[in-house]
Amino acid sequence: MPRQITAFSNPLVKQARGLRDKKNRRAEGLFLAEGLRILTEASEAGMLPQMLFYSDSGHPLLAQLIEETEAAGGEAIETNADILHKISGKDNPQTVLGVFPALDTALDRIDRAAAPLWIVAQALRDPGNIGTILRTGDAVGAGGLILIDDCADPFSVEAVRASMGALFTQKIATSRWPDFLAWLRSAPGQLIGTSLNATTDYQRAHYTTPAFILVGNEQAGLPPAYEGECDVLVKMPMLGKADSLNAAVATAVMAFEVINQWRRG
Amino acid sequence: MPRQITAFSNPLVKQARGLRDKKNRRAEGLFLAEGLRILTEASEAGMLPQMLFYSDSGHPLLAQLIEETEAAGGEAIETNADILHKISGKDNPQTVLGVFPALDTALDRIDRAAAPLWIVAQALRDPGNIGTILRTGDAVGAGGLILIDDCADPFSVEAVRASMGALFTQKIATSRWPDFLAWLRSAPGQLIGTSLNATTDYQRAHYTTPAFILVGNEQAGLPPAYEGECDVLVKMPMLGKADSLNAAVATAVMAFEVINQWRRG
Repeated sequence: MPRQITAFSNPLVKQARGLRDKKNRRAEGLFLAEGLRILTEASEAGMLPQMLFYSDSGHPLLAQLIEETEAAGGEAIETNADILHKISGKDNPQTVLGVFPALDTALDRIDRAAAPLWIVAQALRDPGNIGTILRTGDAVGAGGLILIDDCADPFSVEAVRASMGALFTQKIATSRWPDFLAWLRSAPGQLIGTSLNATTDYQRAHYTTPAFILVGNEQAGLPPAYEGECDVLVKMPMLGKADSLNAAVATAVMAFEVINQWRRG
Repeated sequence: MPRQITAFSNPLVKQARGLRDKKNRRAEGLFLAEGLRILTEASEAGMLPQMLFYSDSGHPLLAQLIEETEAAGGEAIETNADILHKISGKDNPQTVLGVFPALDTALDRIDRAAAPLWIVAQALRDPGNIGTILRTGDAVGAGGLILIDDCADPFSVEAVRASMGALFTQKIATSRWPDFLAWLRSAPGQLIGTSLNATTDYQRAHYTTPAFILVGNEQAGLPPAYEGECDVLVKMPMLGKADSLNAAVATAVMAFEVINQWRRG
């Protein structure tokens, strides 16, 4: 039976709210995800929250989510919009919010044969970009996202929100560059980088599976040494004044080119 | 000669800070842009700030900007990082920040013959998406962005920041749908929509100039009546579970397909 909580001072509310901070996510091994669509996506991917806070159980998908959460040993907590606002920090909070156990992000859990395409991001600082790249990864049939060096936390509220549920359907790994490179070279895989210094147009290169698209930091792009390790280094057409694209946009344009080549057979 | 301001209570600081609110931007006909790169882009596009706040004049590009601003009758104001933080709201503020006169966004100022490609966004709510689309527009050689119905303010701090200067190189217009449609049909122009309901793959359609890529609201997509007005309605491949892309990402993938077709001749 769901219990009711309407007090701001309730320890579970405080705990959930604390998960907006990375420090607490690390310490407790938990993260937050909001919204019926995202939580349903999670459930379909076999992941259920430890705690489910909701303010309106009228929706049949939410009723099902409550049932599944309780059946799996999680706790369903009926609350109100004020509490959901307090936890999520959003002015118009979703009517449902889940507290999930952290996912294992060990690189050796990635089975590269499980998908033709993987995305690798290096030192990405914007959690919104990380979420958006996860969402794009889902759309292009990628297997997941490998985060290299110091990236923003993929389990931050902003990243989870921007991923629109893809956080639960894409594999996520974190690694340092030397470890990633050793892992990459232990089996077949094509490392694809984009660079303004490249001479090959991104539509002229030939992409093979499994392909790994490597994206660099928002400001600095890829370090030259990382570019040097790429099997294919390509440039996209830049017809304007600024020679620059948002990192998540550049990733998507590159990824769609790769799958478009493969679609042509 | 630049003057110095170091008091939070200074009326110019208060005025500039107030421009983070849309209400004040409207009332005063001004907006904020931060960062040496973005302000240099503005200057190269012929736009100089009325007021230029800066904390460190050591950079030669900044020295030039100060000179140009004063020569054009604007005011250069030497200040410190605390004041810049107070104005911009950013924890690590840029060392320079400009207050610009609002740009004219009348639709009839758009000369469609000036570029082969234009982007049209309908009811986009995220200012970051609007800025990112402007930045993409610059990269693909678009002429500008036409904002239909109730979009987020393209002159908000978030949109200007995400545009990385493209706000000053892309034309921006705002319009209601019936007015836009009347304007569009008054001369040649192909209206391109993307829809999950479309049956034509986005790589199978033929794109002609001037092309207008129409992007819908983040949650709802395009209203069916708007889709009905499109000359070409196409779908992108969606290989994942969610059938969805971030609006700025979808715009970029579509725009690169259009220019790629034209690059092939």
